[in-house]
Amino acid sequence: MERPEALIFDVFGTVVDWRTGVANEVARAFSGKAGSVDPWAFADAWRAQYQPGMAEIRSGRRGYVALDLLHRENLERTLANFSLAGMLDESEKEALNHAWEKLPPWPDTVSGLTRLGRHFLVAACSNGSIALMSRLARYAGLPWHAILGAEIAGAYKPQPAVYLKSCAALALPPDRVMMVAAHNDDLRAAAACGLKTAFVARPTEHGRSQKSDLAPEGEWDIVADDFENLSEKLMG
Amino acid sequence: MERPEALIFDVFGTVVDWRTGVANEVARAFSGKAGSVDPWAFADAWRAQYQPGMAEIRSGRRGYVALDLLHRENLERTLANFSLAGMLDESEKEALNHAWEKLPPWPDTVSGLTRLGRHFLVAACSNGSIALMSRLARYAGLPWHAILGAEIAGAYKPQPAVYLKSCAALALPPDRVMMVAAHNDDLRAAAACGLKTAFVARPTEHGRSQKSDLAPEGEWDIVADDFENLSEKLMG
Repeated sequence: MERPEALIFDVFGTVVDWRTGVANEVARAFSGKAGSVDPWAFADAWRAQYQPGMAEIRSGRRGYVALDLLHRENLERTLANFSLAGMLDESEKEALNHAWEKLPPWPDTVSGLTRLGRHFLVAACSNGSIALMSRLARYAGLPWHAILGAEIAGAYKPQPAVYLKSCAALALPPDRVMMVAAHNDDLRAAAACGLKTAFVARPTEHGRSQKSDLAPEGEWDIVADDFENLSEKLMG
Repeated sequence: MERPEALIFDVFGTVVDWRTGVANEVARAFSGKAGSVDPWAFADAWRAQYQPGMAEIRSGRRGYVALDLLHRENLERTLANFSLAGMLDESEKEALNHAWEKLPPWPDTVSGLTRLGRHFLVAACSNGSIALMSRLARYAGLPWHAILGAEIAGAYKPQPAVYLKSCAALALPPDRVMMVAAHNDDLRAAAACGLKTAFVARPTEHGRSQKSDLAPEGEWDIVADDFENLSEKLMG
């Protein structure tokens, strides 16, 4: 394999542990409130609205809006489903929606990205907005060279435009760019656009009983244990 | 003054020393070639084509193209003006055009941005493309949280769209964002859009006999000696 010039990364699940981060913020939002909420169940339910929210936009039934707004709409729905609709006022809901900017990196993330960044361009290629991704970069110390992804394309992964416009923004043909993700469907879409692919399993993204994406399901160019191992395999 | 949430930076001249960087690459490109070229004069002449190249796009006579292409066209013109048109082949000219990605930071740049980045979002707001700015970030170790500026706006500073779309990409109103620049005209345009402003003089950007932008020429919110001093004045 010819070495890529840039690595672009899925972020939620691949780079950061969204479930732990969101559960922490949910617990904080409801601390001192009457009643009780399981913050892990709430985080899972909020995230479960993620794909349906984007599906409206991918289908063309709705124009592109930033993920921040979809998260906010999904929060209302999740609060209602948990019979908690009246529990938070507007400013508390707005604050809780920023949970997605306060997600802890996996233990190998920052050291691995730092190491990879010495040899390659490293950029976020997420469905998160620039506003969300830049705040998350600051919070988690992610040493990106650029924020690419959904917002610069006005589309949501796995739509081809997101991968292709991210490559174009780096002035690189797709085969000089490697998509790194913990999700086989993300890599499948990137490969179909001509990008190189690296799979890094994150077996506790969805908690200890996770069933999906535990192993590679395609002929990915690299399968690595974590970002440090990815760096070793690329530089080997 | 209410503290801003984000600082967005002019890059060429304010964050990096383009003249030294380009002169170094020009000297490298012509080393071992017949004849001689003054690399500083060449760098100045190349840069002198910068505003006329963008003026075509600002006026609407030409659609938006990335600065990389303007730099390439301006390189051809500069080579011709120096009677050096036949001296470099296509691949050598292409390589030299990447000079703008290899610019040294000012001595206070990386430590100052790192310090500022602990308290504020810090982002590039340059006329350079994402491709150029991301490679420059890697080369010079610039710890940006995001690359904003011309490319996300499809326009060139000092057009208002560049400042306003950079603020919008951070989901912030202009008065929560501070433009940092060594150029009074950049700050004038940012202030007209409602942004806060900080002037940091870079008195050798154009060499030791520099005449312009040696002092603030407006009522900027902050005037600082360098990025460390800017951090002190903002946090103090």
